[in-house]
Amino acid sequence: MFNPAIASLTAPPVSVVLDWRASYNGDKGALIDMSQAVPGYAAHPDMMMALADAAATVDAARYGRVEGDDGLRTAYAAHLGEIYDSTVEMGETHITSGCNQAFVASALAVAGRGEEILMTRPCYFNHESALGMLGINIGYVDCHTENGMRPLVADIDAAIGPKTRALAIVTPNNPCGTIYPADLLDEIFTLCRKRGIWLILDETYRDFLPLNTGQPHRLLSHDGWQDTLIQLYSFSKSYCMPGHRLGAVTGGAALIAELAKIIDNIQICAPRTPQIAVAPMLRQLTDWRQENRARIAARSDLFAEIIASMDGWTLLSTGAYFGYVKHPFAGTASIEVAQDMARKAGVLTIPGTFFGEGQEDYLRFAFANAGRDVIAELPDRLAGL
Amino acid sequence: MFNPAIASLTAPPVSVVLDWRASYNGDKGALIDMSQAVPGYAAHPDMMMALADAAATVDAARYGRVEGDDGLRTAYAAHLGEIYDSTVEMGETHITSGCNQAFVASALAVAGRGEEILMTRPCYFNHESALGMLGINIGYVDCHTENGMRPLVADIDAAIGPKTRALAIVTPNNPCGTIYPADLLDEIFTLCRKRGIWLILDETYRDFLPLNTGQPHRLLSHDGWQDTLIQLYSFSKSYCMPGHRLGAVTGGAALIAELAKIIDNIQICAPRTPQIAVAPMLRQLTDWRQENRARIAARSDLFAEIIASMDGWTLLSTGAYFGYVKHPFAGTASIEVAQDMARKAGVLTIPGTFFGEGQEDYLRFAFANAGRDVIAELPDRLAGL
Repeated sequence: MFNPAIASLTAPPVSVVLDWRASYNGDKGALIDMSQAVPGYAAHPDMMMALADAAATVDAARYGRVEGDDGLRTAYAAHLGEIYDSTVEMGETHITSGCNQAFVASALAVAGRGEEILMTRPCYFNHESALGMLGINIGYVDCHTENGMRPLVADIDAAIGPKTRALAIVTPNNPCGTIYPADLLDEIFTLCRKRGIWLILDETYRDFLPLNTGQPHRLLSHDGWQDTLIQLYSFSKSYCMPGHRLGAVTGGAALIAELAKIIDNIQICAPRTPQIAVAPMLRQLTDWRQENRARIAARSDLFAEIIASMDGWTLLSTGAYFGYVKHPFAGTASIEVAQDMARKAGVLTIPGTFFGEGQEDYLRFAFANAGRDVIAELPDRLAGL
Repeated sequence: MFNPAIASLTAPPVSVVLDWRASYNGDKGALIDMSQAVPGYAAHPDMMMALADAAATVDAARYGRVEGDDGLRTAYAAHLGEIYDSTVEMGETHITSGCNQAFVASALAVAGRGEEILMTRPCYFNHESALGMLGINIGYVDCHTENGMRPLVADIDAAIGPKTRALAIVTPNNPCGTIYPADLLDEIFTLCRKRGIWLILDETYRDFLPLNTGQPHRLLSHDGWQDTLIQLYSFSKSYCMPGHRLGAVTGGAALIAELAKIIDNIQICAPRTPQIAVAPMLRQLTDWRQENRARIAARSDLFAEIIASMDGWTLLSTGAYFGYVKHPFAGTASIEVAQDMARKAGVLTIPGTFFGEGQEDYLRFAFANAGRDVIAELPDRLAGL
């Protein structure tokens, strides 16, 4: 009846986890949702107003250009120039309907049937299922605690084979929260260039890097970066508007032309309302973005402290947005642990099993979703599981 | 550098045609755009207000369920029940970000790489490029004027091979405007069921059927339709809001579960603003939809009359939304004719070449885009090309 490449995929992991909410009877207090990666605070009032204003326009109801509105592309290119101290052209950007779409389109643009894309493991589940869906083979580069859950360049080098078309990495990492330093990204970029493969760099959580991070990397200043780098971004997380679906790809003009063919088929264009609303906000909400970085950093610190205080629980890695945690129930599958936590403690997390093979002992906590008071509740909630 | 399946696709046809606008110097009057399929009148004021109201809500900024909001799915299922005199469950619907996404997801759900989907020719260009992009083979069933540009059931039967997983048809047809009668759809459905293939029925232009059409077909009343039928729909055209990107699939619960895996990867969920806004409008704007049917029907009649009055031009087919027209320049490629029409006459149409092989003598006019006064201008504009 169905395409075996789809039939063999599991149901959407976040939907599975969110359905566990019904199993909790509320006796420990309000449900703590640290599962889906969504900001646990409201969008800026200016953004809400801009969205309402944009939705009221006749223009927002019309089709836009496949590649995105000129206004948003121009603003985003300038924004990238500031962040990376570089010059990015409008024609080197493509607006998408969310960052997952940016990934699917980018993967499909560079890898054909039976070719391979490498990803780090633990890996973001939707990247894995997207490639499975497209019939693109996956090669894994395992990350280990002794390397701070970052890949070794030698491991990447060894994993590249004749069919490898790209390496996909996520920094700050999903699910680990790990931040890849600029020097490591330089090394990885250089390797990819040397070996003739694309580097797909998902920076969905870029705006949640700690305040002292500085320029996240120098890749957009390398001559000819357009022949190696494909950078992905999400407006949803930074501006607290995932329901509006808005993401972006940065890449060479040749890549953008290929992406346009794909996006035309799967989307025609990204929704216009958020495109119109976001364009002026990239500059206007600069201070607010910085405040949120500080806010998330404080949650990160507290989260690390809280997990350290809990017997048997170990924080494997963090940095921005997520903490990747070893649970104390060795031998019990992470999905059972997470279900128990949902049902008995009213705490939703994503079990390691969704992030790839060998992740049974771990859980992902999206601490960005939860205020400091809520994070502080975890020891009580999780005691006596 | 790139996936050959993508590199071999042409640039998005509508983008190519819209770029011809710049070639027209305006000396014949305002540009007449009968290229892209967009309604040539404004959305209802209630809809515009509902969109603005929805965009202002915190809820619209949040992720929704992959399958779509319960509110819209329930309203749409009830709406389908009324149109088709049938009972459709909420769980038999899936909301998508536009109808092109509905097609891509449906095709991928039922056909793997190297399997085949049949489509009628002339065919909607994005259906063709979507399958090419996914590595799904295409079989063509040619339509001819002697059959009113509708396929013969015997031709479909003969085209089904061991790798065929589905037949995709569009009614009212894009690009021909042709309406497939309920009896023909019954025969096609019965054949698909007998031969064990899916019938993907794209009804994007359903709300533009002439007023006297009655129930478009009886397929949703057949026992076990869920094992054969996949029905696609677009809210964009009916409610004049393509920029908001909203479509839907109707199918069995098993299909919806497969679609959810795909949509999760390429979109997470459809944008929330239009989902919230449209739900009550399905009922509220019933009369307005009927008025637009009358309005489009009047344009259709006038368009037929006007083409009949033009020496050398022949209307091959029409019905709803589009007219498929033979141009008088036999031997000249349709793309050159269309470019000349844009440059010299300021009239944008889509050349037949974009609708498949053997379509060099034809042009698609989206008369729904143009008021009656504009349609009446065509003879003067196109004289002396």
